[in-house]
Parts: sequence; C-alpha cells; structure tokens
Amino acid sequence: MVWNTQLDWVIVRFGGEIGIKSEWTRRAYERLLLKNIKSALKHFDNTYDEIVSIRGRIYVRTCDPEKVASTLTRVFGVSSASPAKQTNSNIEEIACTAMQLAEATIHSRNTFAVRCHRVGKHDYSSMDICRLVGQDILTKLESRKIHVDLTNPRHTVSIEVRDDKAYVFAESLQCPGGFPVGSQDKVVCLLSGGIDSPVACWLAMKRGCTILPVYFDNAPLTDETTTARALDTAKKLFEWSIGYPRKVYIVPNGKNLQTFIKDAPRRFTCLLCKRMMYRIAEHIAENERAQGVVTGEAIGEQASQTITNLRVLDEAATSYPIHRPLLGFDKTETEAIAKRIGTFEISVREAKDCTAAPDKPATKADLRKVKEAEERIDIPNLVEEAVRAAKILTV
Amino acid sequence: MVWNTQLDWVIVRFGGEIGIKSEWTRRAYERLLLKNIKSALKHFDNTYDEIVSIRGRIYVRTCDPEKVASTLTRVFGVSSASPAKQTNSNIEEIACTAMQLAEATIHSRNTFAVRCHRVGKHDYSSMDICRLVGQDILTKLESRKIHVDLTNPRHTVSIEVRDDKAYVFAESLQCPGGFPVGSQDKVVCLLSGGIDSPVACWLAMKRGCTILPVYFDNAPLTDETTTARALDTAKKLFEWSIGYPRKVYIVPNGKNLQTFIKDAPRRFTCLLCKRMMYRIAEHIAENERAQGVVTGEAIGEQASQTITNLRVLDEAATSYPIHRPLLGFDKTETEAIAKRIGTFEISVREAKDCTAAPDKPATKADLRKVKEAEERIDIPNLVEEAVRAAKILTV
Repeated sequence: MVWNTQLDWVIVRFGGEIGIKSEWTRRAYERLLLKNIKSALKHFDNTYDEIVSIRGRIYVRTCDPEKVASTLTRVFGVSSASPAKQTNSNIEEIACTAMQLAEATIHSRNTFAVRCHRVGKHDYSSMDICRLVGQDILTKLESRKIHVDLTNPRHTVSIEVRDDKAYVFAESLQCPGGFPVGSQDKVVCLLSGGIDSPVACWLAMKRGCTILPVYFDNAPLTDETTTARALDTAKKLFEWSIGYPRKVYIVPNGKNLQTFIKDAPRRFTCLLCKRMMYRIAEHIAENERAQGVVTGEAIGEQASQTITNLRVLDEAATSYPIHRPLLGFDKTETEAIAKRIGTFEISVREAKDCTAAPDKPATKADLRKVKEAEERIDIPNLVEEAVRAAKILTV
Repeated sequence: MVWNTQLDWVIVRFGGEIGIKSEWTRRAYERLLLKNIKSALKHFDNTYDEIVSIRGRIYVRTCDPEKVASTLTRVFGVSSASPAKQTNSNIEEIACTAMQLAEATIHSRNTFAVRCHRVGKHDYSSMDICRLVGQDILTKLESRKIHVDLTNPRHTVSIEVRDDKAYVFAESLQCPGGFPVGSQDKVVCLLSGGIDSPVACWLAMKRGCTILPVYFDNAPLTDETTTARALDTAKKLFEWSIGYPRKVYIVPNGKNLQTFIKDAPRRFTCLLCKRMMYRIAEHIAENERAQGVVTGEAIGEQASQTITNLRVLDEAATSYPIHRPLLGFDKTETEAIAKRIGTFEISVREAKDCTAAPDKPATKADLRKVKEAEERIDIPNLVEEAVRAAKILTV
C-alpha cells in the first residue's frame, strides 16, 4: 500500500518562544496563529475538514496533508509541520500503522529509528512503543537487512500520542518559526526592491509585525522597471502575511534627489536622500499609526552605512525608532534568505539603478556639515510635498 | 607518507564584500586584516615564517598550518582558510603533489573530484589540470575502486595556482566572514551576560566595529555571580578582537532600579530601567567617542521588547542610534550563534536573575505616561551619579 495515500492529518508545531509566554499571551498568540493558518489555507486553495487547537499543537484533518504542510512553511509562528496518519491510541493499532509506514519507506540495508512523543494517560510509556515498534519492524522486514541507528538514522518512524489519538509520520517540514503576523504592531518599511530591503521586511514580519512598505520613486533618476521590481517584491512579501493589508506607498523622490545633487555637496547626496526618506517614513508612520521604521541597512555594506554614517542618518528620525534587522548580516547571508523567501530572483532582475550616487561618498560624514547643507534647502517643504504626492496602492 | 606532515602553507580567503569595495577602501581593509591576522596568530601562540598578501588572498607559511587555520576561524574578515602544500606551478609537479594528497586521503570505493582555481599566465588551463590529475588518480588508485563525482564528492583534491606557485589542499575551514575589526568605529554595547547581548556584540564586531561593553550592576537585586558571568562573556568576546582594547564599564544600577520600583508604576519598571541604561550608555559613548549603542533586543522576545515598547525605549536615546542586530532573530537562532562563539555555556551558568521584573509588565506602554512617571524622579541626577560611579576594568 502506498503510504502517502493514507495520510489524513497534519501535525502543526509552534515556535518555542510562544510556549514560554504568560498563559494569557500564549492563548492570544495561539488564537491568532489559528486565524492566520486558516487564512493561508484558504488563500492557497487548500481544503480541510477539521482544524483542532490543543495546548501547544494544532491538528488539521485534510485529504491533502502534503499540500497543507507545504502551505504552512509560509506561516510565521509555525515551527514545523508533519503530514501524518491518525489512529486511536491503542498500542496495537499504533504499531500496525507504524509498520505500514516502515514497509513503505525503509529500503534495503538502510538504517532507521523509532521516536515517540506522548501526552496524556496511557498504560504504556513512550519507550514501550519504541521498543515494540522497533522490534516489529526488525522482525517483519528482516529480509531487507535493515538496522537501528538512534543517532543518525536514514529513516525515522515517528509517533505522537495525545490522549485517545495517535499520529504516525515520516517527515517534518521546517516552517519559518517566529511569531504570528499581527502579534506585533505595524511598521513602515523602506522597500527599494533590491536584495536587502525585502529581507529586512520579512524579518520584521517573522517576529510578528505587519508591514507597510514605502517605495521611493527616484524617477527620472530611475524608471518604471525599478518601480515594478519594488512592487513585485512587495507582492511576494505579502504571501507571508495572508489575511493582512497589502498596501504600498509610492513616494516621489526624484525632485528631492535632484535638489540635493544641485544644492548640496555631492559627497552627502546619499546621506541627504536617506535622511529625507526617514523623515517621510515618519510622517507616514504617524498617519498610519505604525510604531517604527524598518530599513535594510547593514553595517558597512555601503558608504552611507558605516557605523558613523548610520548615526548621521539616525539623527534625522525624531519620533520613531529606525529598525535595521540586517545590521549584522553579511551579504551572502542576506542573499540566502532572499532566495529562500522568493524575493532574490525579483531583486536581481534588470532595473535602472539610481544614478545619483556620487563617485566619492563621505564614509564618515560630519553631522554638523550635513545639517548645514540641509539648512540651505527647504527640507520641511520637500517632505510635505512628497507626503502629499504619495500614492497608495493595494498590490 | 602522511599527508598532514607535508602541509607548509595556509591559504586565507576574504569575505566577498571586501573585494567589491573601491580600490582605496579595499587596500585599507586588506592591510587591516593582515594586521589583525598577525595579532591573532601571536596571541594564540602560532608560529609562522612568512606571511604574504597578494590581491584577494593572504598566504601564511608555517610548520603548523592546521593550527594556523584553526586560529583564523576567529578572525573577522576571513571567509575561509585551507592548510595546503606549496609547489611550483609546473604542471607535473602539481600533479605529483595532488597524487600524494589523493593517495593519503581517498579511501576505497569513495567518490572524489578535482577542482582548480588559477590566476596568472600558464601554458595550461584549470581544466587541463583537473583532467590530468583526475585521470592520474583513477589510474594509479584503480585498485581502490574509486569514482569521480563532480556534484557531491566525498573527497575533493583542490589546487590553487597563482603565478609561479601552486597550492594543493584537501579542506577549507569556514571562517566568520564579515569585515576586519577596526574597519568601523567603536560602539558601546549593553552586555548583561545573558544569552542575547553577547551575540549582539559579536555581530557588531563581525561587521567591523570595536566594542566597549557596559555592564549594569543591579546589586542588591542581583549579586556577584551575575557580574562574574557578564565579565566572562566579555573576555570570551574579546577573543574575537585580538589586538584591540579589552575595556569594560561596570555601572551601578541597583539604586536606580530600587527608585523605579518605589516611585513609579510597577508595570513600567523594566522600561524605565532600560531607558536609564540607554541614557547612561549615551554618556559613555560621548566620553569614549563611540558612534552608537548596541543592545541584544529582539522584537517581541520580552514584554519590554514589543515593537511598541521599543519605540518607548528608543525615545530616551537622544543623540546616538540604538542598534539591535538581533531584532529579527528567533531565540533558537541566537542560541546557535552563542554556542558557536563560546558564550552560551557562560550565559547559562547559575547566576542571580534580576528580581525587579514585575508580574504584569506593560506590553504596549503609553509613552506619555512613562514620561510622566519619570518626571517624578530626578533622572538627570541618577544618570550623573551612575556615570560618575562607573568602574572601568580591563579584562
């Protein structure tokens, strides 16, 4: 009998951090997670018959457990998911189902282990089950010359017993962990569409925030390819927060940049541009009742991101924290996440790079001089104009 | 002949981000990296006879290449290191040395691949070398029944040809990457000695910052075990920045905490305490000419670290950015780094936890009310007293 066709449930596990919250918070997080899971299942066209939340676990009954588990790899707060076959908790019944799994999956000369996790009152221990099932497999599949290896088995026969039910499964899909989206308040995210900023957004979502991406349109220094790229990364990001708003701000920033190029020292162009973005983001955060501003900056990645220049940038933000989840990331590490979450291939698409970056940017700018340069420009007016001209899209 | 005894050089590779800096910056970083490598080799009692820096690589001649490579796993800016045997770039000589490596390392029925990286002018291509050496190995070790597998080989015979020299090696040790320490300015780091804050420090160092840890001594709400633990994590961290100052500030904070417990709403205790730490850290940053303040906060990890409360905390810092490299990390991810860098076992040591944390902390504190609570306390005086009473240690 083919094992996969027998699967009828999915075991859903939570990140460890949810379990250690206070009782009240834990319950609220579990309710929220259940809601988010239902939204994702619906959005990605999964059918299911039943969804049960029991302290520390969610179980989903479905005719396509592998598809459901795969959908859950996109739901924050879920740490892993296992397509499983349900039985009652009678030890013979468990052993019989485990044997079917073993027959279908453990090939000749391979190693295996039996693992059991048990919650509730039973007249057997986890160890009893492991011993019984392990011995059963060795006897019945003797001709396959298979061996037990508890440290590094090729195959694992896993059993989870919970009260009067048991679940038998072969694999656990790794899910993204973190906290359910919506467990934290909203953050405004500077989203350029490059490799870094989508990853920074994703990390904020991973820890429970809803995001409001803000794209600064530097046309005519960039063009519509750059805008399209940013919007496509936003769409991809929203696949990780199904059920939450998919709103994006597009803020015209070309005129600001041209002003900085014309009226301020060239070595400060990128710093002035970023300080401008922070200010505009703060206005949007205020209007949208967000609690912070997220950026993709990493220490030392670019001239504007030396630890000294980050201080120069930060000074422009007066009422919201600037959150930089990538501060300590190497580019290769950021790229690895971008590939995993599906934004990398969008970010490396051909698009017009901003042509405003100077040849010799300041790497340790003097804040006093930067502020002097700004005093010769009507910054508040530029900010106000940009905020007023911002377009809001739903992607 | 035993292969290991023939090793005489170490190939040192840099992180990819150094290579893409402007010519001037790249050279400065390579010089700094060379200096840091020399300091680390000396500190960890490595002997070497020669150290050569050639664009994109450093080569170290030593009688103990495995020890040197192992030391380099602690030097930021190095991405990998390979203990190698040097030959001249004559193709027969290379093939002969590669054969010695193959004989010593490729066991019966295993798979292997030959890889070659070549820089300079030679009358052969990388492909020529791979073909020659591969064929040679298959012929001479025919009795071992070994096979070529270019995708996922069990053993790799690696060859790096550079001008008139070549290096043959079997393994590359993964090193920490990032930028050389000292390539960025100094940051003040809040170091409690728990699991998170040392990892946050390490990530700032990884991106090139020198660190100045500040420990807040909450005695009598904690005791000397807590202080010892923090100082031990600082010592461990400084093993990653050999050649740089090993200074730590210890700031008395127990009186501040007692004041907050007595004179302010209990639900605000941790927020008031952290705002106090930020203010004191800013004073120290000012005195020490640092450029920012690093903390171990992660979104939602504790009640004081909800995205809303991070905003409440941030408001207390007026002239330095608060950098939080762990913002997007799950606890398990932070723990994995802590284990790798050697701080985990110190952080989980028995120590007196701070007993000031309230049962019901505010998770979305109202900034206005927090500031009202502070107005009833002489904050500037407490800050000044704490800074004045700070002790500076070299660990």
